[in-house]
Amino acid sequence: MTQPTRRQLANAIRFLAADAVETAKSGHPGMPMGMADIAEVLWNDYLRHNPSNPHWFNRDRFVLSNGHGSMLQYALLHLSGYDLPIEQLKLFRQLGSHTAGHPERHETPGVETTTGPLGQGFANAVGFALAEKLLAQRFNRPELEVVDHRTWVFMGDGCLMEGVSHEAASLAGTWGLHKLVCFWDNNHISIDGNVEGWFTDNTPERFEAYGWNVVRDVDGHDPESIKAGIEAALSQSDKPTLICCRTTIGFGSPNKAGKESSHGAPLGKDELEATRKQLGWEYGPFEIPQAIYDGWRANGAGTLRQAEWEQLFDKYASQYPGEAAELTRRSHGELPADFVAKADAYIAQVAAEGPTIASRKASQLAIEAYAPLLPEIVGGSADLAHSNLTLWKGSKSVASDDANANYVYYGVREFGMTAIANGLALHGGFIPFDATFLVFSDYARNGVRMSALIPAHAIHVYTHDSIGLGEDGPTHQPVEHLASLRYIPNNDVWRPCDAVESAVSWKAAITRQDGPSCLVFSRQNLPHQPRNAEQIAQIERGGYVLADAAGTPDVILIATGSEVSLATEAKAQLDAAGLKTRVVSMPSTDVFLRQDAAYRESVLPNAVRKRVAVEAGVTGFWRQFVGLDGAVIGIDTFGASAPADQLYKHFGITTAHVVEAAKAL
Amino acid sequence: MTQPTRRQLANAIRFLAADAVETAKSGHPGMPMGMADIAEVLWNDYLRHNPSNPHWFNRDRFVLSNGHGSMLQYALLHLSGYDLPIEQLKLFRQLGSHTAGHPERHETPGVETTTGPLGQGFANAVGFALAEKLLAQRFNRPELEVVDHRTWVFMGDGCLMEGVSHEAASLAGTWGLHKLVCFWDNNHISIDGNVEGWFTDNTPERFEAYGWNVVRDVDGHDPESIKAGIEAALSQSDKPTLICCRTTIGFGSPNKAGKESSHGAPLGKDELEATRKQLGWEYGPFEIPQAIYDGWRANGAGTLRQAEWEQLFDKYASQYPGEAAELTRRSHGELPADFVAKADAYIAQVAAEGPTIASRKASQLAIEAYAPLLPEIVGGSADLAHSNLTLWKGSKSVASDDANANYVYYGVREFGMTAIANGLALHGGFIPFDATFLVFSDYARNGVRMSALIPAHAIHVYTHDSIGLGEDGPTHQPVEHLASLRYIPNNDVWRPCDAVESAVSWKAAITRQDGPSCLVFSRQNLPHQPRNAEQIAQIERGGYVLADAAGTPDVILIATGSEVSLATEAKAQLDAAGLKTRVVSMPSTDVFLRQDAAYRESVLPNAVRKRVAVEAGVTGFWRQFVGLDGAVIGIDTFGASAPADQLYKHFGITTAHVVEAAKAL
Repeated sequence: MTQPTRRQLANAIRFLAADAVETAKSGHPGMPMGMADIAEVLWNDYLRHNPSNPHWFNRDRFVLSNGHGSMLQYALLHLSGYDLPIEQLKLFRQLGSHTAGHPERHETPGVETTTGPLGQGFANAVGFALAEKLLAQRFNRPELEVVDHRTWVFMGDGCLMEGVSHEAASLAGTWGLHKLVCFWDNNHISIDGNVEGWFTDNTPERFEAYGWNVVRDVDGHDPESIKAGIEAALSQSDKPTLICCRTTIGFGSPNKAGKESSHGAPLGKDELEATRKQLGWEYGPFEIPQAIYDGWRANGAGTLRQAEWEQLFDKYASQYPGEAAELTRRSHGELPADFVAKADAYIAQVAAEGPTIASRKASQLAIEAYAPLLPEIVGGSADLAHSNLTLWKGSKSVASDDANANYVYYGVREFGMTAIANGLALHGGFIPFDATFLVFSDYARNGVRMSALIPAHAIHVYTHDSIGLGEDGPTHQPVEHLASLRYIPNNDVWRPCDAVESAVSWKAAITRQDGPSCLVFSRQNLPHQPRNAEQIAQIERGGYVLADAAGTPDVILIATGSEVSLATEAKAQLDAAGLKTRVVSMPSTDVFLRQDAAYRESVLPNAVRKRVAVEAGVTGFWRQFVGLDGAVIGIDTFGASAPADQLYKHFGITTAHVVEAAKAL
Repeated sequence: MTQPTRRQLANAIRFLAADAVETAKSGHPGMPMGMADIAEVLWNDYLRHNPSNPHWFNRDRFVLSNGHGSMLQYALLHLSGYDLPIEQLKLFRQLGSHTAGHPERHETPGVETTTGPLGQGFANAVGFALAEKLLAQRFNRPELEVVDHRTWVFMGDGCLMEGVSHEAASLAGTWGLHKLVCFWDNNHISIDGNVEGWFTDNTPERFEAYGWNVVRDVDGHDPESIKAGIEAALSQSDKPTLICCRTTIGFGSPNKAGKESSHGAPLGKDELEATRKQLGWEYGPFEIPQAIYDGWRANGAGTLRQAEWEQLFDKYASQYPGEAAELTRRSHGELPADFVAKADAYIAQVAAEGPTIASRKASQLAIEAYAPLLPEIVGGSADLAHSNLTLWKGSKSVASDDANANYVYYGVREFGMTAIANGLALHGGFIPFDATFLVFSDYARNGVRMSALIPAHAIHVYTHDSIGLGEDGPTHQPVEHLASLRYIPNNDVWRPCDAVESAVSWKAAITRQDGPSCLVFSRQNLPHQPRNAEQIAQIERGGYVLADAAGTPDVILIATGSEVSLATEAKAQLDAAGLKTRVVSMPSTDVFLRQDAAYRESVLPNAVRKRVAVEAGVTGFWRQFVGLDGAVIGIDTFGASAPADQLYKHFGITTAHVVEAAKAL
């Protein structure tokens, strides 16, 4: 082979994908075969990255929102020179490989975000592009644009059908994210067949309605047409771009191209052979001629590109040493050296003041205290700023050009918000928090799951955490949500009982860098609980003895959040009745369960089986702490619309009931 | 007062709403005050209902998607003559009243669906309109259009920001639901303030891109303008209509109109007084002059309307007695008299055949068996028909005019699908099922919750129920979902272990009319479990002894779905080792926990504490059955991408591990 054609370069993707799927006997060849020509033009002519350093901060971000076409991404990473050898492609979808069924950021160098759940990659990308915009307006200086990169997205019909695409596209348009460029793989096919029966949107008009630049009628198999589309995107200064590419799914397969049969299953030996003939591909499975590799390899250009940027950055650092150090710190995800000490001082101050306030208010005060220390905080709420109490004195809307813009008015878009926050976290340079009512974490549910799976250092603030929100009624009253969120692996849920625990939970969420935290706060006031220094330090362990009896307790009361005060009140009555009672405050079961066995035993001695858990949520969850012989006071039905104090009585979540249950054990 | 003006009629809504919120010290006056004029025109001039009979089948459906404005709906119901006396309005948001904070179908006559979680009322309404279309094409005859009504929706900016509005609007456009008419309360205000910072969509163009008829620039305070908009909607024959109404939130309030301060809090005594002055409303709180009532009362007209329809229906019944009886049966939500017997016969047949198949295949066979008996079944999948196995021989797309249309190609829209299915169920005449992968129940999560809360007789089919789906990896592998779905109150989750339990779970979901069921099925094959007739009958109790030892067991193994065969294999080994072992199959913990104590004790004797639960999901959930001293074998991390059998070994969900755990107790 002499100088390969663009089509031949693209065909390398097609056959790596089809052969890997064939070998794995599982996977999706159709999308990589359909988008190969677009990917070839983008990666070889436009993408500004460095395969030798996937972590170069000013790289362009590439997001495969239609993540089932993972082999497209693995082929691109392999061909362009990332650390993903051909052996890994042969192990596609096998245990322990770096080539999982869908792209996973924590498994594969060069994968910017984990995709597969449709629409979310696109929303993550909106977060990437927002991060770039915010860092640019904070750090860039004339002639010294040290933050300057694009976010490129591949997305399919499925992504566009998902509601989250609406939420994210609307915000991207509002924010004018002109460095966001999305390729719509318009192949007319989804899993159930030709989309004409269920996807008749005029997508270009829809995106124009969001304020996007839309490039229509690109031939996704014609490099010149693709280039023209990209050039039209590059010329934008205030709008994101959607490039609508007509493609053929399974391009090159004589009998399956253009059909859903190429979507989600191996082509089959014979069809793969026929595809080789049709495309004139003379090489065996996983065999790539050197000339093809030469046409793809981007390590040299990437290293040069990074070196040029580093030169620019050195110049920047000499003129703006403070900014350079700050950008470096933030891009490395390092907290300020004194953050923990200052947070601890704040916690001590709160403990000394001992206010009786709603934990959502305590949360806002914690944000007030921590955000000035952490310019990387970018907060927001899904149109509930004054209920979630997420605004602080330093808040400035990201819709502005303010250098210190740090607050996102997400509108009523819980899922888009969460997926965008994940993107902000993954980009680097930010610790995002988002917020809504706890019950509407449902709307964002898979986004929270993705925070934990990716993992992303995102903080999800959920207020109005129980029937204690009162009159809004059962549509707004979470009952099952605490338990459900706790069951998401790698997700830390905190439900503090007072202002001190609230401040600690914020500190824990900020310092926990390997995954998300959900901070769950009350609408109603919660009394301060007195603690000594050791107890304050133990809050970070997720559960601790808040109030104890001398010697081995007769009964242990376990509570969280607004129910801790019921437990402490019950303890007084039980102690008086001669039952030695311990109160365990358990703001985070997730964190507590990670503690060593000795600590857990010290808090919940195995021998003490008279245990009562109390939480205004489903009771089954607490059986792992109280067993079959303990009691749980909670609520297993939907709530009701009434003032909060009446609801607590109505549903029997009362001190009297705790006392009664403890005595009955 | 002589003949009241339209504005005076509308002002009755405004003051009932503002006074009720004031009395409750909680609620949302702004929306009712803003939409009162639109509501007045719609209800007094167009809405074809009968306040004396909220259940009249051919009534127009009215949906308040912006449900926080509940007092608008309560005022309308009260004024027009529904069974909602003024005393109830005085009890707004109080315990036990029929005027909850958000409209609740099960609490208030005339409320068609429970709203508050934004966007879902709109999606429910798409389901109502689809139901009308399908019933009309099935039952109507020339000159005998016994099914002929409209669905009217009020929706706000919040509904339009939510992603589910995209999913539902897209489908409504594709289906050409021309009897669906939506009023957009375009007041430029959401909770965080003027929406210009976060909601800049060109909504008319967006809806035109979905194939809707859009009426622009209606003055929402001018009855003639509103009427013109409605007339434009009535003239449609193939498109749903969005009427864009410019309104002023809190209309009439001198200092809060047009501001977010009128949205979600009482106006305050002084401002309410000033509003009375500004609008010339001379009446006290909850005082409505008779002339106003006379202008609103619709009982007479409604009863006449219903009587006319009944005449038509009688004529229809005389010409088409079979169809009339069928429509009556379906509209009453009655199953065919012989359904249960035929279902039991089918279950017996499956038990006799004892196939080893995937439970998703068993599900499809159950649909094949039951759907011909139940023309009210309307199924569908979110673009996974061939994976969920939801198509059956009688499936016909609802996008057609076929009289027997019964299958919905929902596209990749899990949340919209679920909310539309809720609407289909609430309309009457249908038992809907929807389907996706279990992990993507996340996308629909609040829709499932609403199925349970409303409640709606909807069936949610979730396949690919564990790491057993294999290579697609952790983005597609549910781990926490079974537990999370079970914790939704009033939601019955079934995870059958073989074809027999699968057939029973479908029967249970169909016969359970007071709430939803989630049917959770495997991708992989599951072996048949032998049972006697008594055991087959006990499946419906949610949990039962599948295999027992003589006398009191030493150990009890509890399992669901694909893990039941691990338990039965483990029993053989444990029996051989001298441990008398019972195997409990627990396809539905929800149903089992509703059984009487004696039955539960017979299955899980309290005295037997050596218990092992095994399920390929989070372990904490099972502590309520095995206590602190039992063992749980499951998975508390995310899964991985690999062939299923390797994953089961990798995560230790094996027969050997069950045996080991049981012996170690």
